[in-house]
Amino acid sequence: MHRILSSQLPQYIGETVNVAGWVHRRRLLAKVAFVVLRDREGLLQIVCKESAVPAEEQVVAVTGRVVANEAAPGGVELVEPVFTVLGEAEPPPVELFRPELNASLPMLLDHAAVTLRHPQRKKVFAASAKAVGAFRRALDERGFTEVFTPKIVGSATESGANVFEIDYFGAKAYLAQSPQFYKQTMVGVFERVYEVGPVFRAEPHDTSRHLATYTSLDAELGFIENHRDVMAVLTEVIRAMVGAVEEFGFQAAVPAQIPVLHFQEALKIAGAPEDEPDLAPEHERALGEWAAREHGSDFLYVEGYPMRKRPFYTHPQPGEPRWSNSFDLLFRGLELVTGGQRLHRHEDYLAALNHDTGSLETYLEAFRHGMPPHGGFAIGLERFMARLTGASNVRETTLFPRDLHRVAP
Amino acid sequence: MHRILSSQLPQYIGETVNVAGWVHRRRLLAKVAFVVLRDREGLLQIVCKESAVPAEEQVVAVTGRVVANEAAPGGVELVEPVFTVLGEAEPPPVELFRPELNASLPMLLDHAAVTLRHPQRKKVFAASAKAVGAFRRALDERGFTEVFTPKIVGSATESGANVFEIDYFGAKAYLAQSPQFYKQTMVGVFERVYEVGPVFRAEPHDTSRHLATYTSLDAELGFIENHRDVMAVLTEVIRAMVGAVEEFGFQAAVPAQIPVLHFQEALKIAGAPEDEPDLAPEHERALGEWAAREHGSDFLYVEGYPMRKRPFYTHPQPGEPRWSNSFDLLFRGLELVTGGQRLHRHEDYLAALNHDTGSLETYLEAFRHGMPPHGGFAIGLERFMARLTGASNVRETTLFPRDLHRVAP
Repeated sequence: MHRILSSQLPQYIGETVNVAGWVHRRRLLAKVAFVVLRDREGLLQIVCKESAVPAEEQVVAVTGRVVANEAAPGGVELVEPVFTVLGEAEPPPVELFRPELNASLPMLLDHAAVTLRHPQRKKVFAASAKAVGAFRRALDERGFTEVFTPKIVGSATESGANVFEIDYFGAKAYLAQSPQFYKQTMVGVFERVYEVGPVFRAEPHDTSRHLATYTSLDAELGFIENHRDVMAVLTEVIRAMVGAVEEFGFQAAVPAQIPVLHFQEALKIAGAPEDEPDLAPEHERALGEWAAREHGSDFLYVEGYPMRKRPFYTHPQPGEPRWSNSFDLLFRGLELVTGGQRLHRHEDYLAALNHDTGSLETYLEAFRHGMPPHGGFAIGLERFMARLTGASNVRETTLFPRDLHRVAP
Repeated sequence: MHRILSSQLPQYIGETVNVAGWVHRRRLLAKVAFVVLRDREGLLQIVCKESAVPAEEQVVAVTGRVVANEAAPGGVELVEPVFTVLGEAEPPPVELFRPELNASLPMLLDHAAVTLRHPQRKKVFAASAKAVGAFRRALDERGFTEVFTPKIVGSATESGANVFEIDYFGAKAYLAQSPQFYKQTMVGVFERVYEVGPVFRAEPHDTSRHLATYTSLDAELGFIENHRDVMAVLTEVIRAMVGAVEEFGFQAAVPAQIPVLHFQEALKIAGAPEDEPDLAPEHERALGEWAAREHGSDFLYVEGYPMRKRPFYTHPQPGEPRWSNSFDLLFRGLELVTGGQRLHRHEDYLAALNHDTGSLETYLEAFRHGMPPHGGFAIGLERFMARLTGASNVRETTLFPRDLHRVAP
């Protein structure tokens, strides 16, 4: 007999059906036992006359009759069950049946194989998958092409710092810190590209928002006027991502126009000294509060960051070479996205690198042979989900995080 | 004025429009010059009265009037053009305007930044992106959830061989050879999962079908009867992928039922000795010819491979422990996909590992706490595209391949 899912149960009232899943909870009362079964769609209640019911986390197939019961979750329950055990289980290291998972962060991560089964944990990653789907769909609809670029590179990408070295058939190679150079190169092929993939940072900082590897949602597009065209695409992407997670109860305010501040104005509003070269975390927090208060927005663009704090491929602000055509997008007072217009003329790259092109020669080939004005952005998926869900640590929105101290499970 | 794309030109006959792209070709005749412009959608012809026209690969914006001309590609052309150069270009290292790119494989790869712009090269990767989109959509429709699992692992996944070692904050770690253990673990959370991402193999073989890193399309599903349920999903996924690339002129025959041979029958048909433990490339070729001849199919399943040639997590064939519930899917006589049913009982893992669980302890946690019968598969994206397009080398269907000798560009 065909297996049905918990969400389909209300369609089968009065019928005998097969369901299957994990024993989420069992409650043994004097004359009756309740089993709550968990499958990929949700939970369902089974009423048992006998006390010989399977243990929590055992995987079972159940044949039973569906009856309406207003008191049951979803208004239906299964009665007269016959259980077949498909997978035995030892008691889980945490109580998965509790509405809130009561576990420390190390416990959560050390036992991720089990703690991720908790409905609250599972929901975060189901939403994350939908957000990524929305990212791709928004770009597909706008003529972007997905690319897959190498994660092993012959030389460090943006700088020599924070790069993982690998033994590459006896020679040295590195893990890509970003697909930056490749996505720019691919603008020369497809004009508009995106990539969803891992990036690697040998991040020596042990903070709640840094990881040694995370999922970067990268996009790059050609034939732009300036970085504002990039921001326009990003705004629609963010709107799509936020829209896609609403079904899970996660919400964020994306106004029709996300407010934009120039870096100089941002410093003033944040109460920072006017010669600060970058925004410190407390400045970002103050700006996030300002955007919420003044514009009802959870997002805020800051554009025009000083050139000296941006990578060499950054395009300067025309007529104001101290400032750049780059931006950050803050989400509730934390940098979520970095982006901007890039240099596109070969000679500008030579000048930016003081003609010391070194290992970047192959990267520069695209620019030697004709590139349009272009720009792009990169969204940190785990950070997006952390801000969205209110998680205080980005490790809570990463399935199996990697950091200075953690390389398992 | 709004930029329009080459594909939209026929809608604007008689109007003055803006287009932009790369100068794909220029032909200077006695009294007229032709410029073929390339944008992300295709090519368009521009007729110039003056001989001062931009050089090949220069990026230009062009304002001109659209006129019908049956002799022009697409039936329209642009006249009275005014060019604005957006990006200068040196002459490309290969002649991109020729219908077929005349370049050796090293030339193709060394200058990928430019050679990928050739319409024939570009088409392969546009099709590849569509195939991946179809992979995801086929699984989304079947209740699968996308996951992102770590590419840095604390211990080698399947075996100690062919693994890249990295310097992980002064300690040793490795690049994941596959998401195998993680996708199985995630079956415990979502029942059905997939991942599209890089896998890493320190492959010492310098062949036309091996790479040091490639894009693996992984799926895993729970609550199966046996490996045949996995094959049923894979068949629909393959059908969707092949369907998605037809618009590019790439075709493959996927019959309603892809033929299935048991390993023992496959050996006979291939004319191999009956005690062979695996299929050699010449056997796979013979089987591919058999499937095409006897079933009109470009695809062929071989199931039941000997347990001793399959990894420890493979589920044996019930009642025939010499054989396994695993399979390969051959595409035109080459292994494209490996899959099968996995062990799901904790005690079966302990037995398979002779109770020497070592670094696999954390992997086994999912099995200790209840797992359903499950299985999955992994498709090599670049190999799929190579078979589909008739490329003789998988490097031709990889944007920036990595192998024993190549780590750039």
